Amino acid sequence: MRHDGRTTEDIRTVTIEKDYLIHPEGSVLISVGNTKVICTATIEDRVPPFLRGSGKGWISAEYSMLPRATGQRTIRESSRGKVGGRTMEIQRLIGRALRAVVDLDAIGERTIWIDCDVIQADGGTRTSSITGAFVALVIAANKLQVEKQLPTFPVRDFLAATSVGKLADGQLITDLDYVEDSSADVDMNVVMTGEGQFVELQGTGEEATFSRAEMNDLLTLAEQGIERLIKIQKETLGELANKVGQRAGDAQ
Amino acid sequence: MRHDGRTTEDIRTVTIEKDYLIHPEGSVLISVGNTKVICTATIEDRVPPFLRGSGKGWISAEYSMLPRATGQRTIRESSRGKVGGRTMEIQRLIGRALRAVVDLDAIGERTIWIDCDVIQADGGTRTSSITGAFVALVIAANKLQVEKQLPTFPVRDFLAATSVGKLADGQLITDLDYVEDSSADVDMNVVMTGEGQFVELQGTGEEATFSRAEMNDLLTLAEQGIERLIKIQKETLGELANKVGQRAGDAQ
Amino acid sequence: MRHDGRTTEDIRTVTIEKDYLIHPEGSVLISVGNTKVICTATIEDRVPPFLRGSGKGWISAEYSMLPRATGQRTIRESSRGKVGGRTMEIQRLIGRALRAVVDLDAIGERTIWIDCDVIQADGGTRTSSITGAFVALVIAANKLQVEKQLPTFPVRDFLAATSVGKLADGQLITDLDYVEDSSADVDMNVVMTGEGQFVELQGTGEEATFSRAEMNDLLTLAEQGIERLIKIQKETLGELANKVGQRAGDAQ
Amino acid sequence: MRHDGRTTEDIRTVTIEKDYLIHPEGSVLISVGNTKVICTATIEDRVPPFLRGSGKGWISAEYSMLPRATGQRTIRESSRGKVGGRTMEIQRLIGRALRAVVDLDAIGERTIWIDCDVIQADGGTRTSSITGAFVALVIAANKLQVEKQLPTFPVRDFLAATSVGKLADGQLITDLDYVEDSSADVDMNVVMTGEGQFVELQGTGEEATFSRAEMNDLLTLAEQGIERLIKIQKETLGELANKVGQRAGDAQ
Amino acid sequence: MRHDGRTTEDIRTVTIEKDYLIHPEGSVLISVGNTKVICTATIEDRVPPFLRGSGKGWISAEYSMLPRATGQRTIRESSRGKVGGRTMEIQRLIGRALRAVVDLDAIGERTIWIDCDVIQADGGTRTSSITGAFVALVIAANKLQVEKQLPTFPVRDFLAATSVGKLADGQLITDLDYVEDSSADVDMNVVMTGEGQFVELQGTGEEATFSRAEMNDLLTLAEQGIERLIKIQKETLGELANKVGQRAGDAQ
Amino acid sequence: MRHDGRTTEDIRTVTIEKDYLIHPEGSVLISVGNTKVICTATIEDRVPPFLRGSGKGWISAEYSMLPRATGQRTIRESSRGKVGGRTMEIQRLIGRALRAVVDLDAIGERTIWIDCDVIQADGGTRTSSITGAFVALVIAANKLQVEKQLPTFPVRDFLAATSVGKLADGQLITDLDYVEDSSADVDMNVVMTGEGQFVELQGTGEEATFSRAEMNDLLTLAEQGIERLIKIQKETLGELANKVGQRAGDAQ
Repeated sequence: MRHDGRTTEDIRTVTIEKDYLIHPEGSVLISVGNTKVICTATIEDRVPPFLRGSGKGWISAEYSMLPRATGQRTIRESSRGKVGGRTMEIQRLIGRALRAVVDLDAIGERTIWIDCDVIQADGGTRTSSITGAFVALVIAANKLQVEKQLPTFPVRDFLAATSVGKLADGQLITDLDYVEDSSADVDMNVVMTGEGQFVELQGTGEEATFSRAEMNDLLTLAEQGIERLIKIQKETLGELANKVGQRAGDAQ
Repeated sequence: MRHDGRTTEDIRTVTIEKDYLIHPEGSVLISVGNTKVICTATIEDRVPPFLRGSGKGWISAEYSMLPRATGQRTIRESSRGKVGGRTMEIQRLIGRALRAVVDLDAIGERTIWIDCDVIQADGGTRTSSITGAFVALVIAANKLQVEKQLPTFPVRDFLAATSVGKLADGQLITDLDYVEDSSADVDMNVVMTGEGQFVELQGTGEEATFSRAEMNDLLTLAEQGIERLIKIQKETLGELANKVGQRAGDAQ
Repeated sequence: MRHDGRTTEDIRTVTIEKDYLIHPEGSVLISVGNTKVICTATIEDRVPPFLRGSGKGWISAEYSMLPRATGQRTIRESSRGKVGGRTMEIQRLIGRALRAVVDLDAIGERTIWIDCDVIQADGGTRTSSITGAFVALVIAANKLQVEKQLPTFPVRDFLAATSVGKLADGQLITDLDYVEDSSADVDMNVVMTGEGQFVELQGTGEEATFSRAEMNDLLTLAEQGIERLIKIQKETLGELANKVGQRAGDAQ
Repeated sequence: MRHDGRTTEDIRTVTIEKDYLIHPEGSVLISVGNTKVICTATIEDRVPPFLRGSGKGWISAEYSMLPRATGQRTIRESSRGKVGGRTMEIQRLIGRALRAVVDLDAIGERTIWIDCDVIQADGGTRTSSITGAFVALVIAANKLQVEKQLPTFPVRDFLAATSVGKLADGQLITDLDYVEDSSADVDMNVVMTGEGQFVELQGTGEEATFSRAEMNDLLTLAEQGIERLIKIQKETLGELANKVGQRAGDAQ
Repeated sequence: MRHDGRTTEDIRTVTIEKDYLIHPEGSVLISVGNTKVICTATIEDRVPPFLRGSGKGWISAEYSMLPRATGQRTIRESSRGKVGGRTMEIQRLIGRALRAVVDLDAIGERTIWIDCDVIQADGGTRTSSITGAFVALVIAANKLQVEKQLPTFPVRDFLAATSVGKLADGQLITDLDYVEDSSADVDMNVVMTGEGQFVELQGTGEEATFSRAEMNDLLTLAEQGIERLIKIQKETLGELANKVGQRAGDAQ
Repeated sequence: MRHDGRTTEDIRTVTIEKDYLIHPEGSVLISVGNTKVICTATIEDRVPPFLRGSGKGWISAEYSMLPRATGQRTIRESSRGKVGGRTMEIQRLIGRALRAVVDLDAIGERTIWIDCDVIQADGGTRTSSITGAFVALVIAANKLQVEKQLPTFPVRDFLAATSVGKLADGQLITDLDYVEDSSADVDMNVVMTGEGQFVELQGTGEEATFSRAEMNDLLTLAEQGIERLIKIQKETLGELANKVGQRAGDAQ
């Protein structure tokens, strides 16, 4: 039994509020326990320089936390005048993860900007960002497909993420909250598709290590957690869920 | 009649959700029509260098907008590497306005950080920030007073803000939304206390001017709007509202 | 009687030295008491991105103080690596104020850069900058009109600024010097046109407030002070003063 | 057979030149094929703020590439004025990895700075940096132990890193060079200890995914490669290799 | 005969206006032809970290140009967010040059800040800055000596600077103005003391070279020019000039 | 006799390793005693804005030191977020020096980037950078000439640099190492061509001065040292040395 009553394989209560904001092409407020992230997707009609003229699109992600998302106030990165290493690492991860399930040719020379703004943090902000951003992305992709009459739905598969970890006593658990994360020996973030394929896997021992057997058990926990998250994404999206993976020529 | 059905002196529907976040000492989500701002108040046990050893406290404010708070995505100031002029102007205004009703001696050598993060913008973000931040400040001030057994409640009077303006056709109106603000000839932000005193007044003609008579009428509109906002602040605060203005020695 | 012998409505001795520098299209050295500002106007044949192709011009202002313009040496903003909030606020104000009396269509797709560099500060640097910059602007506008044969003189009306304020003892005064400004409860900067219209009005109580009656009296003081400043501008400009407000078709 | 004649499990030729520079406490030039990195270890007698007074030390790593380490000249991060996301990600990884095998209590309140400067890049710069930095660290740790008469040798175990990956044709390979890395579907960096424990594992599909079976095979390749790298580290260190893992009380 | 009527060895008309500003401990406005620089000296009661506890003082210099000091408007370094290479080179030169004639032990643990702000540029701004800054420094040093009752006058010798150069036609000239400087093959800045010793010498061929014989002739021109500049410094300083070089024990 | 056994006119042992890196168009590792610098030359097919359309090329240089090139670790300029004054001064010097012997018309609208990265410092890093960079430049220039069939070899003459100085005891010496440089009264960097012409000369007394006679002797020492350096450059370049100075029409 964990400190909040969960079993080792339980994820926290997850809610995803669709169309949370009026301006973005896609937006959600995802809550994973007390962790709350506003995720938006924006369609921009141009691409980074290295793709100009390629006919191909791009996904760029940015991540930030409000100063009082955390127990102690953190100084804004805009006040510091630079984006920190942790933020960069997370936003690169979010972008890379989403690109793995998007057909970048299908969206044409457009950038989909993903913005993940953590308004309350209690562990798992990067994985919650990915899970929420995926839903915002599908909503925006649908608007893009309808408006531009794209033959193929540009999102090829579902995608969600969770964390798994090893506590100091050796216990392996899923979806760590802040208390668990702070004291864990090993922390592993896993991103998987609806097909059960891995997209990204980052396992880290901070002043600690883990064996190959432990890694196998952690992956099994991650698979179970992500399966549940994808189920919740599908419920949130409703009919729109059916479009994910549709190609030109599929009966619609 | 205005484009959204309001009369010239109507403010938009205002709601203030208290204790919106779990971590900060004080927090609200204020909605003024479609403008939504998360306002938090943080107590920090130190002051800027110029006040060290003075026994006096300080109020510092920061303001930011999420990239998709607006119709077009705006680039984050953390990505630009610097805080823009508009942001600086607004955060200086918020801090100055709140300091006018706080007894800085009563809080001792502490800084109260005010963070206003606009999650959705539809005009009036700076005035909504002030009106919401005041409520977060009172909540935090109460915690500070209880915890440190301060004899005087450090907030001396109520404080709220609204905008008034002159449209291109000469009409004078209260609480401009984005559509009105974009086309107004004159925009005036007014901050007032519960006693009906002015704290700050910023009237600006962008490529336009205004007469002394118009200014008098604008001030009357502002007084009416702010009176209504302070009534809503009091309803939100409930019993806590009575503490505002209490001094050591007052019957409690 | 004020500390320097002035009555409450007296402004300080003002001199404006025309064509102070050899390179700029327009330049003055304005002295308002001990406050001295070099103001220059530069014509640049391009506009900011948001105006490209619009046929319309722009006025941009920058403001700075030499490190020893003040009693204590201030660190250069170039050494700090960023422009501070106060500077941004002032340069935005100067630009906005001047744009209110310039016919931006008449100057075509050009930017007039206004640079105000305070070489000695004794209170009122922002209002002195506006009053001096107006004269530099007229000189540059004249060169532009002659050189490009513009049918309309692009400056529509005179423009000057002063400060008014309320001292701790309740006295209301015009054109505060540094000693008065440091101890004032309320400080109000007012920008007006030759026609007596308001362009900008910024009244601020730093840890203090003011009543509507006081505001009325402050505005009366400001009107009187600005009238005198515009008279001095006209004397400085000589014949050029007559061009202000001239339109295509006016007898010249 | 791979493009350079290696089998799927071959790592490239590795040489580690000890004491490459005269100034640092520890330094090597590591060559992994054409990838060449200067790794230095510096002992500094102070720790970051969060460890002051804790009696515990820290390892901080920095990573950089010379502009012409690469085929195309890359702009210096000092000229850009900021450290990029990729660099931050790598230097955080190097620091975290080394901390996993260092007894931070044993070094006392000191920081060991690791600097990895890539002078020639041909794939695998981050894993080569870790493998080389470990050797520099042991050399510096030895000097520290001798000079400060530390009872315990502060490095607890060997540590090395390699990359494994999946090519577009599905082939799984070890120690990717630049040509292979550019076209790989999946890239995985693995850091392991002399005991065969995992310290860090980062698997990434860039616009691609991988199955659990593939991951198992990749890990086996990584284990083999790292075993070989640790053998080379031991040969380089000579007698010093025996000190790794020694504790107070061990016969020396 | 040069383009402005001077002979090859003539310097331009030089005036030095003492006590130009009211706030700094020392200040002048120096004009060398059309080049005009405000030079100030500020006494600060602390030193850079590397001198703390040494009992020794320091001279730090900063240099800047107003945007319209030049024919084309230059962008402010504060707006760019960094100080450029040319500025850094010049301010390092000014500081180094003045330190050569100041007794840094005699001033105690204090920094004398030198600020040189070019308000109008017509060639020779760095040498004019040194010549003017020297006078401001002596004025400030006198105040320091009187106020702190220093036994030794901290300025040991006079110091001035000029430029010499070689035109495209081979002609060697003194004190180049902008027109000459722009077309010169070789530009040499020379700083000398009242005793005729060299302090700094920077000769540069931009896409050109010079022979040893030419260098000898350039140095002779520089010596003559600097002798004349030091004469003007002495006239400006009046009685104060006698203090330069006085030591404790000298009859005063 | 000097502290390392050299006579006053001896330079240290110099080796220049050609083609040190595989990627750049030209590269060397130069060692001057314990000072070691990697110098590379990169051909880029574009020029800075001020040369676009001119048909003329440019040489830009950048200089940096590894953090542990020095006895104490220096903080990276990328971490500081800005390039320091010393670095700027040096890279401007290197670029200017090389441009003096390059036919910028002959290279067409191309930039040759020179990167000098000091991997070990023991005095004389800027002069060693120039001497080494010249060799890298000739190698790159040769590739450019061959590939683009330029009629004229774009390097007109040899170029090398050394330092000379005056020790505290008045002794004048060539090629100062760190120990000598730290205690020298006067430090002079001299850049000369194969023809014996001066390109750049920077003599500096740090809190000291020098006479004209001393300067003459220093120049003689510099001439002798540079002559030897150019001999070593020629030996390193082998046959390529003959191309330096060749013009279209010369028998090849």
